[in-house]
Amino acid sequence: MAVQVSVVGSGAEHEERAEAVGRLLAERGATVVTGGLGEVMAAASRGAKGAGGTTIGILPGETRAGANPWLDHVVISGIGHARNLAVVASGDAVIAVGGRFGTLAEIGFALTLERPVVVLEPGWEVEGTHRAATPEEAVEFALAAARPRS
Amino acid sequence: MAVQVSVVGSGAEHEERAEAVGRLLAERGATVVTGGLGEVMAAASRGAKGAGGTTIGILPGETRAGANPWLDHVVISGIGHARNLAVVASGDAVIAVGGRFGTLAEIGFALTLERPVVVLEPGWEVEGTHRAATPEEAVEFALAAARPRS
Amino acid sequence: MAVQVSVVGSGAEHEERAEAVGRLLAERGATVVTGGLGEVMAAASRGAKGAGGTTIGILPGETRAGANPWLDHVVISGIGHARNLAVVASGDAVIAVGGRFGTLAEIGFALTLERPVVVLEPGWEVEGTHRAATPEEAVEFALAAARPRS
Amino acid sequence: MAVQVSVVGSGAEHEERAEAVGRLLAERGATVVTGGLGEVMAAASRGAKGAGGTTIGILPGETRAGANPWLDHVVISGIGHARNLAVVASGDAVIAVGGRFGTLAEIGFALTLERPVVVLEPGWEVEGTHRAATPEEAVEFALAAARPRS
Repeated sequence: MAVQVSVVGSGAEHEERAEAVGRLLAERGATVVTGGLGEVMAAASRGAKGAGGTTIGILPGETRAGANPWLDHVVISGIGHARNLAVVASGDAVIAVGGRFGTLAEIGFALTLERPVVVLEPGWEVEGTHRAATPEEAVEFALAAARPRS
Repeated sequence: MAVQVSVVGSGAEHEERAEAVGRLLAERGATVVTGGLGEVMAAASRGAKGAGGTTIGILPGETRAGANPWLDHVVISGIGHARNLAVVASGDAVIAVGGRFGTLAEIGFALTLERPVVVLEPGWEVEGTHRAATPEEAVEFALAAARPRS
Repeated sequence: MAVQVSVVGSGAEHEERAEAVGRLLAERGATVVTGGLGEVMAAASRGAKGAGGTTIGILPGETRAGANPWLDHVVISGIGHARNLAVVASGDAVIAVGGRFGTLAEIGFALTLERPVVVLEPGWEVEGTHRAATPEEAVEFALAAARPRS
Repeated sequence: MAVQVSVVGSGAEHEERAEAVGRLLAERGATVVTGGLGEVMAAASRGAKGAGGTTIGILPGETRAGANPWLDHVVISGIGHARNLAVVASGDAVIAVGGRFGTLAEIGFALTLERPVVVLEPGWEVEGTHRAATPEEAVEFALAAARPRS
């Protein structure tokens, strides 16, 4: 099974960097897991697909509504915002790109579950996370820290 | 995106038929979604992988603990039995093979969400489900009825 | 802490019996737990309140929208149908009155978690459940079988 | 229905202040909602019960295991850390006392759902939250800001 890295965040202004993160992860053979919707989630998925990678989207609703078109596989969770837990738990590491309060919840859950978390600057400042200045640095750290949890 | 069919159930005595279901789904190009653990879930995944297919396991815990070795992708839900909702919601159709009370919950949720449900006999008798006598018949019906929900 | 009994089900035609169940539970000192919405859930809560009892509603949405007016306390779960798990898990025993597929999921979950389940006839026929012909019989059985799980 | 205020947090060193928060909420007639376990959750519940108030605990597991003894009602969610969403969603306002990463997830979810959030200092510094220096100030603000969401 390939390494899985979750990319979380939001904000249209962060899409370019999120796309680079997705592309770099795919080039390194990692599967990209996101919440499956727009902005950062869509950009990371688009970047990964452009590089021939694999993408999984864990959607909040009861149907595929809102899914971006760069997903290979969808998980339709039906549990709303609580799916944020599944998004980060499914990553062997987590990269946060931008983001508002939902991203904060994801960082909190990721740290609770002891997943390595990289925040691509600028972004939430939370103790226990690693800071990265560039997509390259974020991906490098995430893949070095990633390890399956069992 | 490939059609996704969820295979639910349990019981070691149903593994052979579950493996056939997984194999037939993979041969027809469908991705197999399960709860990611043993018995029917493992057998369906093994059958799909043996035929070159793709498998996704939606695990109940907070790690990969208990995951069977025939999964291409894991979703670590962290929500225990409530992940049964995600398992059936993620299928464009659902096939039940054997199973106990957890499977009954999955059938109930699948019908609530208007997913087509095939019960491979013998199995739970629930109005609103389709009955199939063989793995071939179950897969045939599931793929004919499957359609993405948005 | 008082004994908690979950009342699940749906169907306007079952409201009168659900109200009797709620009333009888309250008269015996049990707290009534439901999914917090209409029909059977509302009727059971109304019955309990009419007898001076205590009611808890575990809602599926992210607000109080749809809550019936006979709830003392609401839990706003935000997890949609997955809250069915919490509804039955929170009962020291479960009584099903009428109901469709969501109720079937609840019966499946209740039996998975080894909660005693009484089906007030007519209703879903599931092995492992107790059958009751009247609200009195259902409540009598539920309270005799109820015990906190820890 | 009484106003419901959720008290979140952790850390034995914060118990005294959490107990004061619970007591003050109860004196003002608010129901105290927590995650039902120890430390801050237990202390807030104990404070509320000592003042004759009402307490609800939303537990992560499938049984009452770990529940503190100052709960009037328990919701057994069965969804692990994802129950953090329900804890804050069920509050008309949220007060954070101490806390680690789980509390951060709760603050993130509370702000996502537009619940008023008060952080009793010292505590997580998150934009969009109100800061309070004392339990009195925290309770005052929470009750002034609390309003049911529908």
